[in-house]
Amino acid sequence: MAPAAPKSGDVIFASVDRVNAELFTLTYGAIVRQLITDLEEVEEVNKQLDQMGYNIGVRLVDEFLAKSSVSRCVDFRETADVIAKVGFKMFLGVTASVTNWDADGTTCSLILEDNPLVDFVELPDTCQGLHYCNILSGVVRGALEMVSMKTEVTWLRDMLRGDDVFELQVKLLKQVPEEYPYKDDE
Amino acid sequence: MAPAAPKSGDVIFASVDRVNAELFTLTYGAIVRQLITDLEEVEEVNKQLDQMGYNIGVRLVDEFLAKSSVSRCVDFRETADVIAKVGFKMFLGVTASVTNWDADGTTCSLILEDNPLVDFVELPDTCQGLHYCNILSGVVRGALEMVSMKTEVTWLRDMLRGDDVFELQVKLLKQVPEEYPYKDDE
Repeated sequence: MAPAAPKSGDVIFASVDRVNAELFTLTYGAIVRQLITDLEEVEEVNKQLDQMGYNIGVRLVDEFLAKSSVSRCVDFRETADVIAKVGFKMFLGVTASVTNWDADGTTCSLILEDNPLVDFVELPDTCQGLHYCNILSGVVRGALEMVSMKTEVTWLRDMLRGDDVFELQVKLLKQVPEEYPYKDDE
Repeated sequence: MAPAAPKSGDVIFASVDRVNAELFTLTYGAIVRQLITDLEEVEEVNKQLDQMGYNIGVRLVDEFLAKSSVSRCVDFRETADVIAKVGFKMFLGVTASVTNWDADGTTCSLILEDNPLVDFVELPDTCQGLHYCNILSGVVRGALEMVSMKTEVTWLRDMLRGDDVFELQVKLLKQVPEEYPYKDDE
């Protein structure tokens, strides 16, 4: 059977089960607060959020592939576009733009102007080193690893630190085609 | 100005910002797992989830009152109905039914047949005492406290423990009208 055509993020987002964004935002805030209390060191909190996100990304990629009808991307460029336009929309209800490509097409930035994770959030002075949204970088890293792309994902700009947007740099380190978790004809 | 008529949970849910339910489910799962690792004792995890929920409920009630156009409920019976039909729908996308009223109308049960928090969740044997959804009982308790109702909220049935539904008993302990956080004419 020929694969279905990929769906737009808007169409998929309208069709999936959803919960109230404020409930999600407050629940995420509760995690971060809990980690700060338990781990004390901001660096440790960053690591733990990233790890949580990684575990989530590894699982979410299945729903993403099933619901989006996206099949194998030609290259990292196309993959980054799909994450920005379909992935972010499908899960968070917002889209990102892709910019700042390097010459060999292995590093780019995802720009988020709107981010439901940070509604009502202000960082106290004691948390200035915190990457509050580090769960997102972990999700991207985990999801990409499941489609055989080892990446390094780093926040370059952060609205909670006074920047005008969120900028998430994604750097492709290695591609391992044989670990691809599904076949084209499935 | 006359207050706007209360809106149905469906109408409100369609109008609020939302995120993907699976992302929420996995994120919540990450919290529970983190608490189990950090706190070790299942009873402590139950307490912490309840406390997190309480803090969330205290904040969510503002959005609830603003978006739902629900004004002061006549009595606890009406309040329980509003939570079940409007509150759960507005935040989780599911409705609860209200049953098992006691004779004096101060204790009832909210029955949930569908609960996005527990999709894909199975409790390992080591977690049998866990009230996985304890954040919900905390949310209900916190939100009710903000409209001057001190309650005790207890899980009587739990699908993760093999029951056919989730049953959350809500018992009104005390009503403190003077703490009501808004006036009817606001």
